[in-house]
Amino acid sequence: MACTAGQVIRCKAAVAWEAGKPLVIEEVEVAPPQAKEVRLKILYTSLCHTDVYFWEAKGQNPLFPRIYGHEAGGIVESVGEGVTDLRPGDHVLPVFTGECKGCAHCESEESNMCDLLRINTDRGVMLNDGKSRFSINGKPIYHFVGTSTFSEYTVVHVGCVAEINPLAPLDKVCVLSCGISTGLGATLNVAKPLKGSIVAIFGLGAVGLAAAEGARIAGASRIIGVDLNSNRFKEAKKFGVTEFVNPKDHKKPVQEVIAEITNGGVDRSVECTGNVDAMISAFECVHDGWGVAVLVGVPHKDAVLKTHPMNLLNERTLKGTFFGNYKPRSDLPSVVEKYMTKELEVEKFITHSVPFSEINKAFDYMLKGEGLRCIIRMEE
Amino acid sequence: MACTAGQVIRCKAAVAWEAGKPLVIEEVEVAPPQAKEVRLKILYTSLCHTDVYFWEAKGQNPLFPRIYGHEAGGIVESVGEGVTDLRPGDHVLPVFTGECKGCAHCESEESNMCDLLRINTDRGVMLNDGKSRFSINGKPIYHFVGTSTFSEYTVVHVGCVAEINPLAPLDKVCVLSCGISTGLGATLNVAKPLKGSIVAIFGLGAVGLAAAEGARIAGASRIIGVDLNSNRFKEAKKFGVTEFVNPKDHKKPVQEVIAEITNGGVDRSVECTGNVDAMISAFECVHDGWGVAVLVGVPHKDAVLKTHPMNLLNERTLKGTFFGNYKPRSDLPSVVEKYMTKELEVEKFITHSVPFSEINKAFDYMLKGEGLRCIIRMEE
Ligand SMILES: NC(=O)c1ccc[n+]([C@@H]2O[C@H](COP(=O)([O-])OP(=O)(O)OC[C@H]3O[C@@H](n4cnc5c(N)ncnc54)[C@H](O)[C@@H]3O)[C@@H](O)[C@H]2O)c1
Ligand SMILES: NC(=O)c1ccc[n+]([C@@H]2O[C@H](COP(=O)([O-])OP(=O)(O)OC[C@H]3O[C@@H](n4cnc5c(N)ncnc54)[C@H](O)[C@@H]3O)[C@@H](O)[C@H]2O)c1
Ligand SMILES: [Zn+2]
Ligand SMILES: [Zn+2]
Ligand SMILES: [Zn+2]
Ligand SMILES: [Zn+2]
Repeated sequence: MACTAGQVIRCKAAVAWEAGKPLVIEEVEVAPPQAKEVRLKILYTSLCHTDVYFWEAKGQNPLFPRIYGHEAGGIVESVGEGVTDLRPGDHVLPVFTGECKGCAHCESEESNMCDLLRINTDRGVMLNDGKSRFSINGKPIYHFVGTSTFSEYTVVHVGCVAEINPLAPLDKVCVLSCGISTGLGATLNVAKPLKGSIVAIFGLGAVGLAAAEGARIAGASRIIGVDLNSNRFKEAKKFGVTEFVNPKDHKKPVQEVIAEITNGGVDRSVECTGNVDAMISAFECVHDGWGVAVLVGVPHKDAVLKTHPMNLLNERTLKGTFFGNYKPRSDLPSVVEKYMTKELEVEKFITHSVPFSEINKAFDYMLKGEGLRCIIRMEE
Repeated sequence: MACTAGQVIRCKAAVAWEAGKPLVIEEVEVAPPQAKEVRLKILYTSLCHTDVYFWEAKGQNPLFPRIYGHEAGGIVESVGEGVTDLRPGDHVLPVFTGECKGCAHCESEESNMCDLLRINTDRGVMLNDGKSRFSINGKPIYHFVGTSTFSEYTVVHVGCVAEINPLAPLDKVCVLSCGISTGLGATLNVAKPLKGSIVAIFGLGAVGLAAAEGARIAGASRIIGVDLNSNRFKEAKKFGVTEFVNPKDHKKPVQEVIAEITNGGVDRSVECTGNVDAMISAFECVHDGWGVAVLVGVPHKDAVLKTHPMNLLNERTLKGTFFGNYKPRSDLPSVVEKYMTKELEVEKFITHSVPFSEINKAFDYMLKGEGLRCIIRMEE
């Protein structure tokens, strides 16, 4: 691959020309990486709700044409000026957020919310020069969350690239770039259930099931899945969920139902819905004295979380997490190792796979709510 | 003292006959302790807002006549059936909450909210038989929060008695029974500031100043005191508070003022006001990524805590504490030791002292907001 370094690469990318319209595979130009950037060859990518949400462009400022995609695995093709810790050939996961290793957050052991590279969904250009590295016949195409992995090659800030074990199969671990690590880390890094704990998971999408996988790994004795959609319960069994509660089946608030079946509340809860009522229930269903609730779902911008302060004074803890509190570069390699040692079962999350030419099928599956993750194979 | 064991003791107690009326020193009969109870000779007691609040009886079911008092130091006079870990002569602090050592909370390392002995301000009788141990000419006088320390002798459940170092001066460490330990533990056990942290304390009463004392002990680099009453600031300086913010001096919300002077927020905050707006400010003024806010103040029963869930998703933590997360019997002895090793400065909290005969003066000081703690000396 060394021959392409410093040159514009022409390759295929799936371009979203308009909100909600099928992506079109186009030939694009990918400029060489600038200072502190790397150019990646993407081998596998997968589709996440966030791509679909911004492609539908119902809630936010739309930037089109744009190249979506932020869950992926690839190989470094070339590196820009000043990049010393990555080399061509390294196996990597690009990440929608980053770790500059220089800001107060990166220096804090407790935070992963890098001031420089924290996700910014409005930004469609590179930090370095405020420009895009993608173009078609010289006309720029916007980036998405700094990754734009629906392209055979992409340019990413070096702080948004995790170098991983080259023996790890990229067609599996590519899904660890976003939602799966988010849910897993929400449980393992933030809720931290003790062995034998009772854990409630609100929302059994990919993120919630990854939170359940975290509870299984932590040795939870009971994992209570809560979802408004009872169809989610079948899939959830594979993830160690032992009991199911559909709030619609009960007249009383779901936190009361859970308190009854758990002798006062669960030890830990993880909310993965984005719905503020579920957040309140997830908080209020934890046991007084020691219960910890972790919020993961991204709420509506006008949402208000309300609770009686006595729920806190009775020694409950309420926390939120971003990307499961994993620092992208420092911590993702260890998540990949959890897969390599078979502690973490990634295959369960991969329900579909399509060649790049059929990327719109992945959108169809997600829009229909079929399965969890669809892998998109770039090389066929 | 052995001669009194098993007998009714006649002694002096300060009886509240009516809401808000001065206490009257009366001769009362104190029955012997029953199973799992101990009878204590109280040497020193101090007055806390909670006594005054229930004596004023503005918000809750009044029980009169009643013997108030719950911060105290004394000596075991005799023990009831089945009491094996306390003996006559032991130096103790009675506590308004307890530790049965048998329930799920007592067995959890994380909780101090004993199911059996958790504070119950409505209960004016002993758990054992639902009766009072105090009487005047055979007519019962109600207990208060299981302690009733405004009496030369009192009967307490063994689970509400912490045995302490007999070398500790009871006229000092008696104030560690309630508010001071609450504030101290809120910081040291729950907020847990790292050395060099910036800590904000909301409410500079005795509890808040004890929280500040905890921050000083933990090695905080800045301690920001927040109070609506600027008179509190002078006293607070003795407790290591380095800066003061009075919300009334600013047009913008105090959390924004604090974010500005701290480059984005404090590392830890401890709320000791009981006011729900202060609780919200205390939460929202902590730094994203790592900030922890701890609620201590007891809110109005209809109070609602409201915040945007993004404040949590940006990796802030919100917790509450009861009695500073100290387990009364297991942990209070170590708080006394902190005083013995001069790590904790208790004298600063003691601003007044009166003989038992002048107990109503202690009420006057508190009602006027003068000083922090008034010691009531039982033996003169
Ligand atoms: N914090 C982060 O770093 C991060 C990262 C990725 C995703 N997320 C968020 O996590 C959330 C979950 O993502 P996902 O991909 O698994 O979504 P998903 O849509 O696949 O799953 C959400 C599930 O929640 C259920 N649900 C909705 N409202 C509910 C309610 N009131 N009670 C019970 N169940 C309810 C739905 O039926 C659905 O099954 C989203 O809000 C997403 O934005 C957060
Ligand atoms: N959780 C527990 O275990 C426990 C134990 C003891 C006391 N408490 C509670 O702790 C709180 C403090 O107790 P205290 O004895 O120190 O009370 P206090 O009345 O002496 O002090 C409270 C201080 O808060 C200030 N204040 C009130 N509203 C404010 C606001 N909005 N912003 C800033 N400052 C404000 C007041 O001016 C006052 O100086 C009370 O609510 C009490 O019930 C809790
Ligand atoms: Zn950074
Ligand atoms: Zn995603
Ligand atoms: Zn107990
Ligand atoms: Zn008190």
